[in-house]
Amino acid sequence: MKKIGIAVLLLSSCCWAQNTESFVPASTNVWGAEYPRVDASGRAEFRLKAPDATTVKLNFWSNPKMDMVKQPDGFWTATTPALVPGFHYYTLIIDGVEVSDPGSHSFFGGGKDASGIEIPEPGSTYYLPQDVPHGAVREIWYFSKVTGSWRHALVYLPPNYDAQTKERYPVLYLQHGGGEDETGWIKQGHANFILDNLIASKSSKPIIIVMAYGYARRAGYVEPDLTGKPFGSPEMMKAMQEMSQTFEDDLTQALIPFIDSTFRTVADRDHRAMAGLSMGGMQTFQVTFDHLELFSYIGGFSGAGGMSMMRGDQKFDTKTAFNGALADPAAFAKRVHLLWIGVGTEEPAMMHAGIVKLHNALDEAKVTHIFYESPGTAHEWQTWRRDLKDFAPMLFQ
Amino acid sequence: MKKIGIAVLLLSSCCWAQNTESFVPASTNVWGAEYPRVDASGRAEFRLKAPDATTVKLNFWSNPKMDMVKQPDGFWTATTPALVPGFHYYTLIIDGVEVSDPGSHSFFGGGKDASGIEIPEPGSTYYLPQDVPHGAVREIWYFSKVTGSWRHALVYLPPNYDAQTKERYPVLYLQHGGGEDETGWIKQGHANFILDNLIASKSSKPIIIVMAYGYARRAGYVEPDLTGKPFGSPEMMKAMQEMSQTFEDDLTQALIPFIDSTFRTVADRDHRAMAGLSMGGMQTFQVTFDHLELFSYIGGFSGAGGMSMMRGDQKFDTKTAFNGALADPAAFAKRVHLLWIGVGTEEPAMMHAGIVKLHNALDEAKVTHIFYESPGTAHEWQTWRRDLKDFAPMLFQ
Repeated sequence: MKKIGIAVLLLSSCCWAQNTESFVPASTNVWGAEYPRVDASGRAEFRLKAPDATTVKLNFWSNPKMDMVKQPDGFWTATTPALVPGFHYYTLIIDGVEVSDPGSHSFFGGGKDASGIEIPEPGSTYYLPQDVPHGAVREIWYFSKVTGSWRHALVYLPPNYDAQTKERYPVLYLQHGGGEDETGWIKQGHANFILDNLIASKSSKPIIIVMAYGYARRAGYVEPDLTGKPFGSPEMMKAMQEMSQTFEDDLTQALIPFIDSTFRTVADRDHRAMAGLSMGGMQTFQVTFDHLELFSYIGGFSGAGGMSMMRGDQKFDTKTAFNGALADPAAFAKRVHLLWIGVGTEEPAMMHAGIVKLHNALDEAKVTHIFYESPGTAHEWQTWRRDLKDFAPMLFQ
Repeated sequence: MKKIGIAVLLLSSCCWAQNTESFVPASTNVWGAEYPRVDASGRAEFRLKAPDATTVKLNFWSNPKMDMVKQPDGFWTATTPALVPGFHYYTLIIDGVEVSDPGSHSFFGGGKDASGIEIPEPGSTYYLPQDVPHGAVREIWYFSKVTGSWRHALVYLPPNYDAQTKERYPVLYLQHGGGEDETGWIKQGHANFILDNLIASKSSKPIIIVMAYGYARRAGYVEPDLTGKPFGSPEMMKAMQEMSQTFEDDLTQALIPFIDSTFRTVADRDHRAMAGLSMGGMQTFQVTFDHLELFSYIGGFSGAGGMSMMRGDQKFDTKTAFNGALADPAAFAKRVHLLWIGVGTEEPAMMHAGIVKLHNALDEAKVTHIFYESPGTAHEWQTWRRDLKDFAPMLFQ
């Protein structure tokens, strides 16, 4: 229909002007978009053509909003201070409406397709594609009797999965955070490249990773009318519990059987792990401690058993927590091969303190576990990439 | 970081109010978004909160722009007339800035992550997930010496690919249109569901589909400065030819060998097809006619050998076109098992006429081919879904 437009697009895409400054287009940009761009110190420059707008703000979710400045040519611009390396969500707020930046690819977060920008970490290549054998990521669809619907998941298969047709592999179930979806660990997290690199250096065994969609509505469930119910009301908590339980049932009753019948897995608890970030970490603790007959490796990345939501004055009781599974540390250590919790040092104080409190309580009760703090990173993907890089090598050893 | 926000999001996501009208949220919406919504007649309702905006327009790429109307509560609304069934790209224009709708998932088109809305086609299920065996879609990465970079592609593997470890499969290379990318045939086109359903009904053989990224910049290529060069200038045409040739070289020298060494293909021309839509159709004709030693099935969906760009007074000469491959129709029919061209009846007149002209010239020269017209559909995905549904069953018979 728009042949000329397409041709121009193709050509302009391929041939944006080379700028002579140190700023280069971000790797998260759409093909050919010159902005946003980043420099070696981690600063990012943004530009948007909006001659008729009254206000344009740059909304980094991990930073205060920043006013963009209108230039005489109708473009709005902003340059950030040096940003922490890694992936950052952001949006633009144009005359009060929060939207994605047309120059960036979009990434599912905050319940929508939001913009994201990658700030390179000098010297870090563990989450980038290298010249090593690559696994494949598969999209799968399975029908869940729990939800009464087709559900979509992603599955990472290690290099040589196809060639080694007699080989069977252990499985890690790896969950996204609240507001994100099953694409997050690949698109934002680069979990596939992290594992490719770990497997190539023999730091990690070849494993299958399953990334499920972390929301579930039970077949036939009638949603309650929560109009006027305050946050944290019993009705709301009940609805949330119902959602959590439905996810747990879908994972354990629909997804795991589907995975074990579709792929060459080792289908026992000694070869099955679960981990997740933030909300996914809380789901991990719920699912695994409810089903220790299914799992023997547990990871909570910036979210572990509700710890991050605990008030400072609340006590974590290792005798009663997690269905009492920790009450006998020796028995627990025999049963669960790895209990791993991580947090970034720059996460919000309450969240950081909650995870540290869990760690201290586990130490005090002599519950064997690993505690990892990611230096200088916040409640963001760089923390979780590092978590995975340290967690995966400890699996199935 | 925003635990309360996430909890609210989750809950609000699950529990939007049930409306009593016939409008329901579009299947292309993000989880929980109540708008846009569609009714059984194909109308679509849009709503956006933008109390401070001065103008908001609804921009369906296949229809004239529509002013949205500001309501006293700060929401802008619009309801379209009945739309043609299928997938439609759209954007919102807020105070002059074209952005995606936060309520819709985004789909790569027009060189950016744009919004899309699915209008159901009454009675049509061929492109929807059904209770049949499902193939898997894989993301793969391969290093291309042609471009000097890692490249991403999607691969559809038919149901039972994993179980039938002795079986080898023919391959269809299937290309997206200009401004789209390798994700289009799955996300917008539902090629995987179309094939699942065709294979289940035994209308199509089980095949592998490879969807490549249709842009390529040669390693070391220095892009020309086209500042001030008019559209169609020799310099611009040369740059476009260079891009086309690079794509052709990447596909034939890097991707095909990678696919044949990675998957259980039948690696010969009798078991290799290529098709594409719009720009991808033009690429298909270029690549296949340059490499008849590699391909024996050819499909052009709304784009075939540049026909759609031909001026009305230009002649299509079957003696000289496509490197003279059609000059001897009997020899051609022996060599190429299928030459297939399709177009929607509602495509722009020049495009429709161009494809019809090719069809007529082929008829006149007695070149065996299939011509398919999709009734009532435009230069949009419903045309290409139908193309694939009719094209795939004719492959490898």
